[in-house]
Amino acid sequence: MGAPYVTTQKIRFCDTDMLGHVNNSVYSVLLEAGRVELVNEAGLLDPANGFGVVIVRLELDFIGELNWPGEVTIESVVYRLGTKSIQVRQRLISNGTIAAKAHTVLAVLDMNTRKAVPLRDDWRKTLDQWVVEDF
Amino acid sequence: MGAPYVTTQKIRFCDTDMLGHVNNSVYSVLLEAGRVELVNEAGLLDPANGFGVVIVRLELDFIGELNWPGEVTIESVVYRLGTKSIQVRQRLISNGTIAAKAHTVLAVLDMNTRKAVPLRDDWRKTLDQWVVEDF
Amino acid sequence: MGAPYVTTQKIRFCDTDMLGHVNNSVYSVLLEAGRVELVNEAGLLDPANGFGVVIVRLELDFIGELNWPGEVTIESVVYRLGTKSIQVRQRLISNGTIAAKAHTVLAVLDMNTRKAVPLRDDWRKTLDQWVVEDF
Amino acid sequence: MGAPYVTTQKIRFCDTDMLGHVNNSVYSVLLEAGRVELVNEAGLLDPANGFGVVIVRLELDFIGELNWPGEVTIESVVYRLGTKSIQVRQRLISNGTIAAKAHTVLAVLDMNTRKAVPLRDDWRKTLDQWVVEDF
Repeated sequence: MGAPYVTTQKIRFCDTDMLGHVNNSVYSVLLEAGRVELVNEAGLLDPANGFGVVIVRLELDFIGELNWPGEVTIESVVYRLGTKSIQVRQRLISNGTIAAKAHTVLAVLDMNTRKAVPLRDDWRKTLDQWVVEDF
Repeated sequence: MGAPYVTTQKIRFCDTDMLGHVNNSVYSVLLEAGRVELVNEAGLLDPANGFGVVIVRLELDFIGELNWPGEVTIESVVYRLGTKSIQVRQRLISNGTIAAKAHTVLAVLDMNTRKAVPLRDDWRKTLDQWVVEDF
Repeated sequence: MGAPYVTTQKIRFCDTDMLGHVNNSVYSVLLEAGRVELVNEAGLLDPANGFGVVIVRLELDFIGELNWPGEVTIESVVYRLGTKSIQVRQRLISNGTIAAKAHTVLAVLDMNTRKAVPLRDDWRKTLDQWVVEDF
Repeated sequence: MGAPYVTTQKIRFCDTDMLGHVNNSVYSVLLEAGRVELVNEAGLLDPANGFGVVIVRLELDFIGELNWPGEVTIESVVYRLGTKSIQVRQRLISNGTIAAKAHTVLAVLDMNTRKAVPLRDDWRKTLDQWVVEDF
């Protein structure tokens, strides 16, 4: 049983749109920023060795507005580990409030064949530290 | 029974990321670009009169890569009309291939109370032209 | 004596910021979108063969606002050709009005040495069609 | 005689482009992120009271690459104060190296008339703390 991977991002002025708040597409940017730090620390983002991580599916619930200026805490957990897929769950938190929840399905890609590869045991071992099954 | 609302966007060089293809967050940008044109034509994006449209939920299936240079066709339909919600389904198409499918739940917001308002009959009538229930 | 290279871009909803107009950083995005189309057509954007184009200096005069929805025409000319540098001048035009003028210094990079290389004669010949010295 | 206003930004994965480094338009984003924090602290970004700051001119020298993952330090100084204009000079620093230098001309806008207004004495007093004339 692991713990969430926690990181932060500062909201940039240009993240806002003409409605006065952070544009919805920036939620995807912030979620990715959190995921790639986790994935990079796990050694899965390794184009030099022919491996990369791609996103297969995103489910994103917009719960609250994000505003400039401000900072966002990004909590990410490994929710499920399949044979070839990694399910990640995330929360964007600002001012102590959950602004968004996301469920993502990732796959590790062989950059040459452009096909998903089975998750190796050493990858699983590293990912285990962030497994939280009831997030 | 209506027909999809179709629009296009050119891929910009900066839409790509270090993996060589269009970054996944840009899919959200392109989907929004298609939705707001539809919503604007329906008169629902009207901050001057106190109305705006917000996104409540996004489900996004990444099916294929997008690359620069290129153009994307964005097909959007009104999938379901609730009392206070609009379900929109969309496809991103490039080079004749579906690169992504999305299901979005939108709400019309009273900009003063920041609460969702029931869909007015004149809005429904306009939205009807893009209703496709088996998209 | 050549003619400007002309291309267009649609303004995206998320290009706007909380001041209600297109964010100033998007002007850089649109200028790049125009430049890379020109540079790509000239065969200078060729990572597979070890060549890429980098920007060395940008001078950008903001003359008018850009707004959503809208389209921008991007005019680009080759202003001067040096031994190792290309000076490009550009205009962003929307609704028949100049929204920005830019002067850019580019260099062709050897991707392995990461150093600027002298402009080859065949590159010069191609670039000549867009040379306008009094833009 | 003042001191630079110093702030930081984390590089996001989607800031990179297909050339493998941070896209040049993101330099404009990072510079703006630094400027608006300064301008906001000086009370000049105040749409509620009818004032906003716009950028009139940008000169930007690209000196080095920025890469993901990484953090950027943004140093900003008030270089000159005119009757109606503020000249700001900035540096982007990463890993102890200057990646870019910028010179910006700003104006304070009356949001109703959309015209530049003379700098008020209380604004000048606040801005004085960041005046560095040989930056």
